[in-house]
Amino acid sequence: MSESFPPADRAGDDKQDRLGQLEAMSCHRPNEDSLIARFFAPIAAAGGLGLKDDAACLTPKANHDLVLTTDALVESVHFLPGDPPRSVARKALGVNVSDLTAKGADPTGFLLSLALPEDWTEAWLADFADGLGQAAGDFGCPLLGGDTVKARGALTLSVTALGQVPAGRMVRRTTAQIGDLICVTGTIGDSALGLALRSDPAWAKILSAPHRAFLADRYLHPQPRWRLAAAVRACAQAAMDVSDGLAGDLAKMMRVSGVSAEIDGDHVPLSDAARAAVEASPGLIHQVMTGGDDYEILCTVAEKNLDRFRKEADSVDVRLSVIGRVVAGTSLPIFRMSGSERRYDVGSFSHF
Amino acid sequence: MSESFPPADRAGDDKQDRLGQLEAMSCHRPNEDSLIARFFAPIAAAGGLGLKDDAACLTPKANHDLVLTTDALVESVHFLPGDPPRSVARKALGVNVSDLTAKGADPTGFLLSLALPEDWTEAWLADFADGLGQAAGDFGCPLLGGDTVKARGALTLSVTALGQVPAGRMVRRTTAQIGDLICVTGTIGDSALGLALRSDPAWAKILSAPHRAFLADRYLHPQPRWRLAAAVRACAQAAMDVSDGLAGDLAKMMRVSGVSAEIDGDHVPLSDAARAAVEASPGLIHQVMTGGDDYEILCTVAEKNLDRFRKEADSVDVRLSVIGRVVAGTSLPIFRMSGSERRYDVGSFSHF
Repeated sequence: MSESFPPADRAGDDKQDRLGQLEAMSCHRPNEDSLIARFFAPIAAAGGLGLKDDAACLTPKANHDLVLTTDALVESVHFLPGDPPRSVARKALGVNVSDLTAKGADPTGFLLSLALPEDWTEAWLADFADGLGQAAGDFGCPLLGGDTVKARGALTLSVTALGQVPAGRMVRRTTAQIGDLICVTGTIGDSALGLALRSDPAWAKILSAPHRAFLADRYLHPQPRWRLAAAVRACAQAAMDVSDGLAGDLAKMMRVSGVSAEIDGDHVPLSDAARAAVEASPGLIHQVMTGGDDYEILCTVAEKNLDRFRKEADSVDVRLSVIGRVVAGTSLPIFRMSGSERRYDVGSFSHF
Repeated sequence: MSESFPPADRAGDDKQDRLGQLEAMSCHRPNEDSLIARFFAPIAAAGGLGLKDDAACLTPKANHDLVLTTDALVESVHFLPGDPPRSVARKALGVNVSDLTAKGADPTGFLLSLALPEDWTEAWLADFADGLGQAAGDFGCPLLGGDTVKARGALTLSVTALGQVPAGRMVRRTTAQIGDLICVTGTIGDSALGLALRSDPAWAKILSAPHRAFLADRYLHPQPRWRLAAAVRACAQAAMDVSDGLAGDLAKMMRVSGVSAEIDGDHVPLSDAARAAVEASPGLIHQVMTGGDDYEILCTVAEKNLDRFRKEADSVDVRLSVIGRVVAGTSLPIFRMSGSERRYDVGSFSHF
């Protein structure tokens, strides 16, 4: 579907005026079809049928389940107005691929819904589409279809990603077992610190330029661990991706599994940059543990499966850390750090 | 994922202040999880896993292809600010189900991405969710998952709908054959007239109250012809749904099929209300033929299949009209009406 206003002036004998306006506009503004043909069709997968049809077509693998997720991004909420369009595109796809990975699903493809504000430029859109195609290639998750509409307000994107798992093998969030080890990929807190850097707090000055660049990049460019999907479904009892902060997301997974957790906070993996930030300003450990946008995989693994999980993670170059254990109980997970103990009462930042 | 700003004040020792604010806010504003649990989980399908996981899980039918479509709706672009939330929900799902039907696909389920503006109310959302659940039931297309975020601007929704067809049987837009009959379901132009009524043009006064109500309802509540999906895939050579106006969409289907069409404009099916409007103000025929939001099925059918198609349409109570024929050529379709001839150079209204 496309823009349906203004309608009142479509009727009757004003057609010539309107056509005149449209021709004038056409010099600068493509219609939806030409916009799709120019920017998105070149990066679309075969199942997208050249984006010339009402819908995409996909033949699922035999004896597989589909895994489906959708995440929206709004300018000034999920990314900043000045962020490079290639980065926005990569994030929009990456956060969805991260959800698929957490379910043990291999990416199959995605649909994009894009609401463009009035002041969009062709240069912006060309870079966005280019970045999207690049990310789709990197994550093995091709564009299948989409819709482009006019925004009334900020740029708003929504990606729906599809993945596949062998039948019955999707990894749930609700199935953590008492005694499981709790594992996390990559490093935690970089993105939250990278975002905080944008407001240039005092502590930023004590970081080296490479550290600042590293953290800023981690905010701009989530690294979905899609290569880990097969290992997650082979080895994890329960999994989710860390998007709303480690402490809050862990609490959520434990709550829906009916268990609790003990975390060795000193084992939570920090990058060199994050470590330097926390050393300079110890209060930042709160940001690290509770800040959002990590897009790492948090999962629980039976002890007997840990060696295999480590080996498979190694084989796809994903860093894996054991940070604690699932325990009985319904209280918030406890984080033990340098002798102190803490329960984070978070996970409710996103008020509407 | 969820809202990630403001981040800068999360660090360090301001935690008590922040928690105080959050508690105060919590009285009035749920967080994303409770919003989903309260409004959307009750209407979700089994595959949505209670909307408690990162993703939905779906087992496709054996030997079937998936058909995937996404359409976004923006307030003041695709619906009006005062439209009832139940109607907005029904339209958001209906326009996607209409796309599936045009491809011959039976609906399987959908994901919703919802960007809520600051001034949303719980009453609005309760009605929206209720209408969405009702529409999902009516169309046989259950809610599988979604994402709720803060808008920066107007309410913006995106629905991604999935359908299924027996393998290889998706009906394309590009496969109209010379000699095919051109058919359309329901009646054309009602929605465009219903929308025009909202700006209260002079001609509205000559319509009876029931006719005005009928047209207004057709704008608010698309009637996707989902019961016709099996007949479309059994009988249609090519199909699409009419969302951007009959003339423009027909031209599009003919162009991508490499053919043209001759339309008997007097056979284009009009409702009694639309007929009364056109009789009172003949210029409105332009609005009828080119206005958007019909959400009827436009398809081409080989002559030998017409009887079967008619019979199947009858059996699911869908009105079917033969309006013309596919002919060789690449010119715009010609509409013959009451002795005059016309080619509509439309299909490019949605400029960006």
